[in-house]
Amino acid sequence: MHNFIWGVDYYPEQWEKKRWAEDAVRIRNFGFTHVRIMEFAWALLEPVEGTYDFTLFDEAIQVLYNAGLQVVLGTPTATFPIWLLEKDPSIRAVFSNRMDRDFGARRLACLNNKTYRDAARKLVTAVAEHFAENPAVAGWQIDNEIGHEGSDHCICASCERAWHEWLQKKYGTIKNLNETWGTVFWSTSYSRFEQVPVPRSQPATQQNPSLILDYDRFMSDTNVDFVHEQAAILRRFCGKKHWITTNLYPSPLSQCIDMKKLFEPLDIAAYDNYPVWGDQSEPVPYIFTNYALAYTRGLKSTGNFAIMEQFTGIQGHTKLGYLPPPEQVVLWTNQAVAHGADRLFYFRWRTAPFAQEQLCYGIFDTDNEDTPRSKKIKENIEHTAELFNSFAGNPVSAQACLVYTRDNANLIRQQPLSTGLENWMNSWSSVGFDAELARWYAGFSIFNVEADVKPAEAVTLQNYKLISLPLYELADPAFAQKIDAWVKDGGVLVLGWRAGARTLENWNIDKPLPGIFSEMAGVQVEAFEALGKGSIGVRRGFLLGKGEVWAEQLIPYTAEVIARYGGTRWINGKKAKVFYSGKPAITRNQHGKGFVYYIGTSPDAVLTFILYKKILHDAGIKARFKGYGIEVVQRTLNDGNTCTLLLNHTDKTRRVCFKTLPPYGFSWKIKRHKR
Amino acid sequence: MHNFIWGVDYYPEQWEKKRWAEDAVRIRNFGFTHVRIMEFAWALLEPVEGTYDFTLFDEAIQVLYNAGLQVVLGTPTATFPIWLLEKDPSIRAVFSNRMDRDFGARRLACLNNKTYRDAARKLVTAVAEHFAENPAVAGWQIDNEIGHEGSDHCICASCERAWHEWLQKKYGTIKNLNETWGTVFWSTSYSRFEQVPVPRSQPATQQNPSLILDYDRFMSDTNVDFVHEQAAILRRFCGKKHWITTNLYPSPLSQCIDMKKLFEPLDIAAYDNYPVWGDQSEPVPYIFTNYALAYTRGLKSTGNFAIMEQFTGIQGHTKLGYLPPPEQVVLWTNQAVAHGADRLFYFRWRTAPFAQEQLCYGIFDTDNEDTPRSKKIKENIEHTAELFNSFAGNPVSAQACLVYTRDNANLIRQQPLSTGLENWMNSWSSVGFDAELARWYAGFSIFNVEADVKPAEAVTLQNYKLISLPLYELADPAFAQKIDAWVKDGGVLVLGWRAGARTLENWNIDKPLPGIFSEMAGVQVEAFEALGKGSIGVRRGFLLGKGEVWAEQLIPYTAEVIARYGGTRWINGKKAKVFYSGKPAITRNQHGKGFVYYIGTSPDAVLTFILYKKILHDAGIKARFKGYGIEVVQRTLNDGNTCTLLLNHTDKTRRVCFKTLPPYGFSWKIKRHKR
Amino acid sequence: MHNFIWGVDYYPEQWEKKRWAEDAVRIRNFGFTHVRIMEFAWALLEPVEGTYDFTLFDEAIQVLYNAGLQVVLGTPTATFPIWLLEKDPSIRAVFSNRMDRDFGARRLACLNNKTYRDAARKLVTAVAEHFAENPAVAGWQIDNEIGHEGSDHCICASCERAWHEWLQKKYGTIKNLNETWGTVFWSTSYSRFEQVPVPRSQPATQQNPSLILDYDRFMSDTNVDFVHEQAAILRRFCGKKHWITTNLYPSPLSQCIDMKKLFEPLDIAAYDNYPVWGDQSEPVPYIFTNYALAYTRGLKSTGNFAIMEQFTGIQGHTKLGYLPPPEQVVLWTNQAVAHGADRLFYFRWRTAPFAQEQLCYGIFDTDNEDTPRSKKIKENIEHTAELFNSFAGNPVSAQACLVYTRDNANLIRQQPLSTGLENWMNSWSSVGFDAELARWYAGFSIFNVEADVKPAEAVTLQNYKLISLPLYELADPAFAQKIDAWVKDGGVLVLGWRAGARTLENWNIDKPLPGIFSEMAGVQVEAFEALGKGSIGVRRGFLLGKGEVWAEQLIPYTAEVIARYGGTRWINGKKAKVFYSGKPAITRNQHGKGFVYYIGTSPDAVLTFILYKKILHDAGIKARFKGYGIEVVQRTLNDGNTCTLLLNHTDKTRRVCFKTLPPYGFSWKIKRHKR
Repeated sequence: MHNFIWGVDYYPEQWEKKRWAEDAVRIRNFGFTHVRIMEFAWALLEPVEGTYDFTLFDEAIQVLYNAGLQVVLGTPTATFPIWLLEKDPSIRAVFSNRMDRDFGARRLACLNNKTYRDAARKLVTAVAEHFAENPAVAGWQIDNEIGHEGSDHCICASCERAWHEWLQKKYGTIKNLNETWGTVFWSTSYSRFEQVPVPRSQPATQQNPSLILDYDRFMSDTNVDFVHEQAAILRRFCGKKHWITTNLYPSPLSQCIDMKKLFEPLDIAAYDNYPVWGDQSEPVPYIFTNYALAYTRGLKSTGNFAIMEQFTGIQGHTKLGYLPPPEQVVLWTNQAVAHGADRLFYFRWRTAPFAQEQLCYGIFDTDNEDTPRSKKIKENIEHTAELFNSFAGNPVSAQACLVYTRDNANLIRQQPLSTGLENWMNSWSSVGFDAELARWYAGFSIFNVEADVKPAEAVTLQNYKLISLPLYELADPAFAQKIDAWVKDGGVLVLGWRAGARTLENWNIDKPLPGIFSEMAGVQVEAFEALGKGSIGVRRGFLLGKGEVWAEQLIPYTAEVIARYGGTRWINGKKAKVFYSGKPAITRNQHGKGFVYYIGTSPDAVLTFILYKKILHDAGIKARFKGYGIEVVQRTLNDGNTCTLLLNHTDKTRRVCFKTLPPYGFSWKIKRHKR
Repeated sequence: MHNFIWGVDYYPEQWEKKRWAEDAVRIRNFGFTHVRIMEFAWALLEPVEGTYDFTLFDEAIQVLYNAGLQVVLGTPTATFPIWLLEKDPSIRAVFSNRMDRDFGARRLACLNNKTYRDAARKLVTAVAEHFAENPAVAGWQIDNEIGHEGSDHCICASCERAWHEWLQKKYGTIKNLNETWGTVFWSTSYSRFEQVPVPRSQPATQQNPSLILDYDRFMSDTNVDFVHEQAAILRRFCGKKHWITTNLYPSPLSQCIDMKKLFEPLDIAAYDNYPVWGDQSEPVPYIFTNYALAYTRGLKSTGNFAIMEQFTGIQGHTKLGYLPPPEQVVLWTNQAVAHGADRLFYFRWRTAPFAQEQLCYGIFDTDNEDTPRSKKIKENIEHTAELFNSFAGNPVSAQACLVYTRDNANLIRQQPLSTGLENWMNSWSSVGFDAELARWYAGFSIFNVEADVKPAEAVTLQNYKLISLPLYELADPAFAQKIDAWVKDGGVLVLGWRAGARTLENWNIDKPLPGIFSEMAGVQVEAFEALGKGSIGVRRGFLLGKGEVWAEQLIPYTAEVIARYGGTRWINGKKAKVFYSGKPAITRNQHGKGFVYYIGTSPDAVLTFILYKKILHDAGIKARFKGYGIEVVQRTLNDGNTCTLLLNHTDKTRRVCFKTLPPYGFSWKIKRHKR
Repeated sequence: MHNFIWGVDYYPEQWEKKRWAEDAVRIRNFGFTHVRIMEFAWALLEPVEGTYDFTLFDEAIQVLYNAGLQVVLGTPTATFPIWLLEKDPSIRAVFSNRMDRDFGARRLACLNNKTYRDAARKLVTAVAEHFAENPAVAGWQIDNEIGHEGSDHCICASCERAWHEWLQKKYGTIKNLNETWGTVFWSTSYSRFEQVPVPRSQPATQQNPSLILDYDRFMSDTNVDFVHEQAAILRRFCGKKHWITTNLYPSPLSQCIDMKKLFEPLDIAAYDNYPVWGDQSEPVPYIFTNYALAYTRGLKSTGNFAIMEQFTGIQGHTKLGYLPPPEQVVLWTNQAVAHGADRLFYFRWRTAPFAQEQLCYGIFDTDNEDTPRSKKIKENIEHTAELFNSFAGNPVSAQACLVYTRDNANLIRQQPLSTGLENWMNSWSSVGFDAELARWYAGFSIFNVEADVKPAEAVTLQNYKLISLPLYELADPAFAQKIDAWVKDGGVLVLGWRAGARTLENWNIDKPLPGIFSEMAGVQVEAFEALGKGSIGVRRGFLLGKGEVWAEQLIPYTAEVIARYGGTRWINGKKAKVFYSGKPAITRNQHGKGFVYYIGTSPDAVLTFILYKKILHDAGIKARFKGYGIEVVQRTLNDGNTCTLLLNHTDKTRRVCFKTLPPYGFSWKIKRHKR
């Protein structure tokens, strides 16, 4: 229980010193109490190797503090000074397409490069030591958007060496590696760990999938280790008196890093919330944002999270796109808070005049004048501050949970199975897995069921009535056993297609699919097809929806049939007959006191609606459909009462729970409990 | 005349030894008599340089033999052991986009690398020597899919050296090369062969087309030499007691290798028959498969061929697509047999649990249980075995022939002329030429006229009533003369647009087009246009079809006009007027006792139908149109009777020749000749 | 005042010597008086380093001269002999995607490579010295298509060194550079010039925009210096007795070179006029060609220009496309002349049989026979020669001018702002800026208002009644001041969106947009959106057009509203509501005696029509709309009379000014002034 933290990202180094005081007062008057600074300032802090200069930030922090503001400090390791490159030119990361990153880009250092790691460690130590006792400091952000822009992956010589050590440690003997990877295939057996290549783009055919999967794990460990090292340094100097986080970025599982593990020694998870960015011609669906927020919240058990960068002005590096109305800008803020943000920093106070982000507009343009969005943001802070204070820090409670694993996300990136799951935003960001997870989250979101998103190793099944488990190919028998017991005890499990298809070592399971889930689901998969970008009709009684991406023909043993393929397949805009029309697509199996749904295809919006009405009912969860785009979110207030937050994501005026919400409007109702 | 060979591809090394015996018995009981093994097993056979270990395969072969099975052995040179890479890191092939291939991929060795060639020669010698007298061995497959996945091309330093020698040998003097290539253009004359670059991807503008064409020929010679060397070794040890082949792959002319030459010392041509693969959302048209089968059959004069890999389960490396109904899977088998396969191996017995092809599903999944396709395949073997035995090995006889040349296929890859001919499936597979040839083959296939596909240097004109010669730009005067005589003698020639446009040295001909064909066709080309992905109306009387890809305006001299441009051109979905509306598009010239059709555009399906009715009639060939998707194929039985095979490639029940064929159904009728 | 020069491009070195005489006579009889030769002949002229051999061209020139022809000589530096590469393998340019260019391509030398520059200087000196006194020589073309095919950019080691020197010279101190570029951002500050990288393709995020912009300027200086050096050599030997030019190519501003500066010491600007090339399925709109011609004309103050290559036959390196009717081929000629070409060379006399351009068809095919286009071209020369002689050399006079700057074109290439401005024809040609400028030029062209296209630093405002200034982001206060005075004095200024957004150093302006234009435009920009490939309704009274690319919401202070957003936005084919419907999109401000229009979006054809009627009226310029595709162009004859040229770019017969023009027809009327 604490006051909601309103913050803003500010870059004193980018403005003349004489403007600082005026800016600080204006920031404070705007309603902000916190300012994030310093996350790209290594060259200023250590202009010459080993010579630290804290003057600029000491002064800037003092000015901010004088105005009543506290600061969150970024450890500025996402870029490095030119002298470090000169010291060791091999410091630059090499992308899997074999292209090295040049000075001038960000996130360009290889995290396995010793020169970089040593320098970063010294810098962070110096920074932590210097600022530990500064009363203005409230918290720390480690690095910035760790793994972003493909920086999770590097294939340089330093990585190759570290990779061999990692393999040695994991497998012990090369025989063990050969057997686990199945290198008998294509004569790719190794006799020493040093022979194993790093996975690079190939002219044709790619590396062993287990090699790629292990490389993802190795790279994840590299990134995690880097963050943990910084966390330990900060903790050593600052103890628990400052909160520590690092900021994630869309889309949640697009890079290979195990963020759950990464956040372990940190205090709070954080996300950079950009529902629209660059040349996107429309924002992502609000449900996708809900999924991303729940994912962030799910990385820690606090039930809350931070937003370290919240969209204000239109943003992009070289191109721009959709302009949200100011009302939508603040609605996105309130959506984040509704789903658990208890501190939120806007990016950024004022637009930089120069350099790589001169098209990333902040609350103010470079001219420093009021903007439509600045007025609306200020007004919203004034309007909601008291409300948000009344529940900030109270955990969001959920009845359902979407469960994923890091390995399965990585596997889908290299083996998308269907072009319907293949979705590269650019050469380094694969959003297919996230888009699919958001689809399975939609069943909760459109019915206004608050749901968590958790990695399998961290979910406490007993907290939920309903678990959704899509794309769970690499399946852990221990977890399946837990799920089995939980279902028998009354839980409702929604299993997605391809569940149980692999062992944890990524071998095709030697049982009929869904493998270790077959018995609890009461079903077997007879055959399957990848639908690509096409679809197939799925019929439940008179109701007709569509399946997308994938279609499994099911043979129910003990399960009952919930829906069947309805016969028409759409490919490339053409209708085609389907030979497995009439075969079961979705089944439900009573298992002990609970149910297991098995869904052999990716449901479209209509089918999702049809299905989840029934699923939620089986789980004893109240569905509250208010129309697409309308959210009704309940939060518990500090005084024990309940507040219902109403969000209208549509561009039309809507009547919800006896309140009128203008386009992109936000409102709330407090229900006082009888004592 | 021999029994039809039913085989399957099996990988003993991928399964625990204790499963072999059970597998072997089940394979035999399934109806198979042959098993292909060992084509990727170099690392097992020679785990350390010079040390051979045949134990595993000796044992496996014995187990198979004990169950009544014979084996076809792959010479396992398509991948190599890690020690060979360590011995010579320059062994890795470099793709024309400048990217070298990493260990872990397949087909990664440069065939001009001496280390690799020496090692491969020794291995194949050892293998041949060891297995020559094994009674279980029935045949050999050399390497695997030679040239596949862009491995036909390499631009490494070894290739550069060999390239210079090849040029020296071909041209003798650099002056000769300069003149032939026209290097006076752009000041690119060479003074020594060593100066000539290998053709790599360029930022802009490409190399001299004659250089690229010669590089294709050089690379073809490299691949051919590699296979011939292996063939000679096998023959040395095994003589004629085993049959030798190597397996091609779709699409026929996508790589640069002269397969006719390659198969010369081999016994039978072979093809890997995958009508659908990877993320294709539908199979290739059955006519394309017919074209590919006829192409394979045409590489040898036997009138038959082998299928070394026949589609069973859904297949792909990282993504899947269309699932054929089990009936279609077996129809594809029967289609291959109908058109001349006299031995057929299914790929693969059981799906591998691990590695690069874990998504390549075999007859069985990894779980080893019956599948819908396994049941249907077994049933089909039982149902057709006797029939296939009654004509296996009897040559397919054809009345028509589609003629191509290797050089012209290579030329179109570098100079596609029209975006309508440019069709890269991926960075290494160009299928535009094949798609166009299949279009010209369709005129035969839809009318159920069995037709051969032959390279110009191997066709015996006298065997045919009708010759189709599309995209014959590089034109051989000697061949034209032969054709001329054949037409005068009553043959019907269908000449495609652009015929005769170039000399054999790839110079623009210095005569009006169609150059050396102008007189026999009685026509000249006035002008031409590339239609790209658009089309143009082509009218024959009241009938209206479409021309695609290219449109030549013809001036008939002695020829009569068969069809004219009809006026509407479609570009990017927009209608446009055409100034050459009314000009001749297709002509026919009586030439001696025969006819020469000149077709100035690529006919669409409707125009093909209109045209070939007439063409076939002129050639005295009986057209039997039974609807698109219905095949009626005649084969001569061992007893001299004729069997009519009926294939229904549609998803509807069809009545054909008084038989009812269910969707994807297959049937036959035997007509007993009176003696 | 001189006779119109009819010329043709001819390559004696590509044909047997014995054909020269016959060719020469035929060329002369065709109506040509000039022949361009030799621009790719370095290897012939200097077969061995330092040994020159002018025999071939001496003879060829003599043969041409004997037939009554004069020659224009290309300095053959666009390709170099193989011995130069052997002398210095580092001579090859490296493209920004890190790929070096191979021998065999053209434009492959780095212009900062000393070996190349020395050799080129010596060659040009030798050539100039040798041919200076040859009476057959009329002029010179320096190099060929300087900067084409991405050759304006190189990132090799030679460039890197020269770049550092260039920066040193420009900035003096590294501090100055750091401050100007804002390298405080992302810790990218430099301590020495040698540390600054060249801009290469990156895996993610690009270099500082100011670095990229400076690199463009540096590369422009490199190219300009190279041409100026050659010009000085030619001038030294030939004085003013030969005219000197170099030939540009489509699209005008696609490469980074400051062509205005480049042409300073040259006599006449020249353009290679290909309204269709390669696989284009239709020609560029005639208005785009008009824009390109006016751009070329605007590079010198002569009021005229040359065409060194004019389209004849269908053209492409590997693929072809649209075939223009012969009437359209000659219409394109006449269009170029109408807008100021006073000499025009057709590319090329006869199609080469071999090499990289064997698909670039000339007036004749390789067979040397008459073609439909050869007949029409000859007929047109006969038909128009006298007319063209009567005004050739008289300057085109314009009432309006479209103003651009080199920097802004470069900026848009790296920061396109909207996908609507991003248009890469291929990896090296960005045509988005040109396409947008052509859109703003259309307002003049469709109303038959002859307009100039001038760089801001060269425009004499007083010559015009109307100035259009689109995409003027980097805004020069001095120029703005001049414009201000000119408007006050009665001029009409059409300011495009984003005007004044940046300082000349590319900093976001610290004033509300349109920055330094705000006062004269009487307007401020409240907010903006990038429309990508979509559009938005723009309403003027009852008239409804569309805005594309970008949409600014305007707040008029002293300006009046001319048009407002009309509410519907189209994105990806879907209609969407727009929250700023009703807000001003276009304003007009009376400023002194003149007007400033501010246009906050890119007008589509309809909106352009609506707007320019009004704008032209305000400027006192007579609008003459004759329908899209009809041009009415006035030229002053040598005798002082006026000739009205009538061009029909449509495929329909049209009645214009009491004349009937067939499809693609051309005609004229002479109005004799009373004396």
